[in-house]
Amino acid sequence: MIKNAVGRMVPTQINGQEAVPFMGVGKYKPNKRKFNSQIETSADYPLDGNKQVKSLKVAMIKSGLKDGMRISTHHHFRNGDLIANKVFDIAHELGVKDLIWFPSASFPCHEHLIQYLEDGTIARIEGSMNGPLGRYCSEGKMKGVAVLRSHGGRYQSVQDGEVEIDIAIIGASSADSFGNANGLNGKSASGLLGFALADSQYANKVIVVTDNMVEFPCVPWQIQGNYVDFTVLLDEIGIPEKIISGTTQITKSPDRLFIAELTAKFCDQAGIIKNGFSFQAGAGGTSLAIGDYFGKIMSEKGIKARFARGGSNKYLVKMLEEGLIDYILDGQTFDLDGVRSMRENSNHVWTSPFTSYNYHGKGNFAGMVDVVILGATEVDLNFNANVVTHSDGYLLHGIGGWQNCLFSKTVILPIPLFRNRIPIIRDEVTTICGPGELIDVIVTERGIAINPLRIDLIEKMKHSDLPIKTLRELKQEAEAICGKMDAPVLSDEIVAAIKWVDGTIIDVVRKVVS
Amino acid sequence: MIKNAVGRMVPTQINGQEAVPFMGVGKYKPNKRKFNSQIETSADYPLDGNKQVKSLKVAMIKSGLKDGMRISTHHHFRNGDLIANKVFDIAHELGVKDLIWFPSASFPCHEHLIQYLEDGTIARIEGSMNGPLGRYCSEGKMKGVAVLRSHGGRYQSVQDGEVEIDIAIIGASSADSFGNANGLNGKSASGLLGFALADSQYANKVIVVTDNMVEFPCVPWQIQGNYVDFTVLLDEIGIPEKIISGTTQITKSPDRLFIAELTAKFCDQAGIIKNGFSFQAGAGGTSLAIGDYFGKIMSEKGIKARFARGGSNKYLVKMLEEGLIDYILDGQTFDLDGVRSMRENSNHVWTSPFTSYNYHGKGNFAGMVDVVILGATEVDLNFNANVVTHSDGYLLHGIGGWQNCLFSKTVILPIPLFRNRIPIIRDEVTTICGPGELIDVIVTERGIAINPLRIDLIEKMKHSDLPIKTLRELKQEAEAICGKMDAPVLSDEIVAAIKWVDGTIIDVVRKVVS
Repeated sequence: MIKNAVGRMVPTQINGQEAVPFMGVGKYKPNKRKFNSQIETSADYPLDGNKQVKSLKVAMIKSGLKDGMRISTHHHFRNGDLIANKVFDIAHELGVKDLIWFPSASFPCHEHLIQYLEDGTIARIEGSMNGPLGRYCSEGKMKGVAVLRSHGGRYQSVQDGEVEIDIAIIGASSADSFGNANGLNGKSASGLLGFALADSQYANKVIVVTDNMVEFPCVPWQIQGNYVDFTVLLDEIGIPEKIISGTTQITKSPDRLFIAELTAKFCDQAGIIKNGFSFQAGAGGTSLAIGDYFGKIMSEKGIKARFARGGSNKYLVKMLEEGLIDYILDGQTFDLDGVRSMRENSNHVWTSPFTSYNYHGKGNFAGMVDVVILGATEVDLNFNANVVTHSDGYLLHGIGGWQNCLFSKTVILPIPLFRNRIPIIRDEVTTICGPGELIDVIVTERGIAINPLRIDLIEKMKHSDLPIKTLRELKQEAEAICGKMDAPVLSDEIVAAIKWVDGTIIDVVRKVVS
Repeated sequence: MIKNAVGRMVPTQINGQEAVPFMGVGKYKPNKRKFNSQIETSADYPLDGNKQVKSLKVAMIKSGLKDGMRISTHHHFRNGDLIANKVFDIAHELGVKDLIWFPSASFPCHEHLIQYLEDGTIARIEGSMNGPLGRYCSEGKMKGVAVLRSHGGRYQSVQDGEVEIDIAIIGASSADSFGNANGLNGKSASGLLGFALADSQYANKVIVVTDNMVEFPCVPWQIQGNYVDFTVLLDEIGIPEKIISGTTQITKSPDRLFIAELTAKFCDQAGIIKNGFSFQAGAGGTSLAIGDYFGKIMSEKGIKARFARGGSNKYLVKMLEEGLIDYILDGQTFDLDGVRSMRENSNHVWTSPFTSYNYHGKGNFAGMVDVVILGATEVDLNFNANVVTHSDGYLLHGIGGWQNCLFSKTVILPIPLFRNRIPIIRDEVTTICGPGELIDVIVTERGIAINPLRIDLIEKMKHSDLPIKTLRELKQEAEAICGKMDAPVLSDEIVAAIKWVDGTIIDVVRKVVS
């Protein structure tokens, strides 16, 4: 164990592989070369381009499935995904053991897989775990240590050869038998397939699974068939109503609306909302409300944004269609309006973790965004923030693009001062996911705290009528109401590692003592 | 020297690098891994994404230009290119020596560079040479051995690490300061930037040069800024009227029109022109005429093609717009209608040498094309064909996508029986660029020869009214008119090597004895 640059004790080995402790933002310079996959030859593939095999099982057998392999899947179908469960049902049926599951994220629908963690089909999960699997992991029941990465970090880990994927199984709402695929058309349309990009480029074997096999060419090819080994047609790959939740709605909570309004006012007064600016907000109810307030301010003042980064939704699409935004640069669509717009509007552009987030490229889009609105479960007085664990120690959320977005010019976390009477401002956050130096503003219902490092913002808000306070003041207010919470009692046992965007270890998650 | 699978003596070393002799189609199985570039980190790039430097010279110096480096450029601006000359003017000015020029193709406008081959700024050219540079090379004046590759072979060589590019200079008619770029917009629009794809992905340093710097994001990003080190704004990067020749016209020669008509009739009678079929024809006058005849047949019979592969032009665009073709899968646009269509019509899809031609991928598009129409300078009685040298031994043409297209289901070469009283059917072609086993039909003004390997086609044409003959018969007819030509007298000295699509050596070009 070694103390890293944010003061956390982290291991130098994880699952038998060397691990580099977090060294500070931009400090780790890898002197290595990227992963180099085996050179393939077209002589080994059907000349007529038809790579379709009769079932996923056949594709997995032909891909050489065996004990200990690393299998990847993706969360384009979110909580409506039917593929990952099917993949491990097949692996179980074939008696394969000790697989490493490398999802881009997992959801409650994957609770089905706990039986395979129990019986040894799956040894461990390397990927974000939303809900039941995170709880299972927190309780120390998983055989290996989970590894959580951001969207950009996942791309980085594969590109850099930190993670070698044996078999990638990519679900697509449209594909041709050659393997060209997209998420734009078909009954399971979810918008785009960016989370599978790294897997398609670098995995040893790539299987594309679809419920909508179209004649070549399937365009646009978000996944290029030239990377694909086998294609499979299934009856269904996702449950449409769960892929697109349809419940992406602006919050109705007066507290949340107030936080949203404060955030928008702050951005306006700080001069962030100006012609040609850019922003990214998430799909949560508060974020949607902030986007909506942004739109109102922009309309009133005749301001146009150059681009908005998605997660897109009907509100963002409306802004694009009304001409308030030149471009949506989208990483995932959260509702059917997002899917439609991406399919029809060439200014609604699909991006990928490579273009937007990969830290080990020649730059990425994250730093070009003027302001980004993110969530957090906890923040400490140094603005370090947590997004994966709750204050009781349970690992219940994925990182998503959260860490990557911290490179935006201004990072704002609009969060309620307490949740279920638990204050969110802590002496020490349970898990550090992002270093405070990258987090600029915390907006709560009782006031706004600006990171002392942002002298420029403090200066700009000097005469503001908004409730500018220090984090310490906000913490005291919360504790005056709720009392001070003790840190959770955790075991020494490490159940998960949290990677920073450069592949170093920023923190670990420990087993919850129940 | 060793005899390869088509009976040609080829060296086992070229320019000091190991060379594998051609082993037969699909026989060489590389047991190697792809090129792995250095892992970069965003920490070394401007956080605001602005990579613009004040001049190409500054970009080249910052890229670490030094003696012996391999520098790549691209032929998107064809004979109107202003970049390659400027690059080597700068190198010369800086006193750098022994550079290897790795163009995707060179044109007569690059005759300017002969002075740098003379003075040692450039040691050798690895790339197709159309015109003066080929003549210069043929005369044995170049210091090293030229290496010619197909479009797909060029991608393969870079991907496989056979060729390591030190600095790639990519000209684009539109770019942003981050390096996202396309060839669709701006005064120098030429359609797409596919020939630079491998360079962007694998070169150690990548410079994007444009005369139309737009605000981020430049979409669509045919070249992704995440691969780019520096961007440069120049006054002009190409001469628009030479980029798009504007002279892409159907042949008016009665002989050529007759050959075109014969070719179309052959395809019709052989059952190739049918609903859902696909075809690729080039941009030459005869090829255009064939496409036009195809269109007439399709209109008459109510037949629709699933896709046509471009080189696109106004004739192909018209077919797309009239609904005779579902998709154009385009590798380069030859006129302004092609550029416009690609910009505006989402069914006019830009492809790349990776998707279409790279033999060392998991398949490519070439084998999915039902019929492809290609040219040739010479053919022998075994259907082996030459596309780079003339019968006098001079190397005057590039390979382009020619070798890659040979994997189409039916390959037809419509060629005049003789040119300038020189018969094109030879005992032995001057240079073998494609093995006869992949060439199915030769159409001349005096008859059509079907490769004996294509029993199916011979059977289909058994009762045809078309003049089906053997290649030997056609050869005799030509020689009866023109007399038999002797093979050119060539030196033993090798001036160029011709790579097959898998990186092996299919033939060499020898110095012309003048």
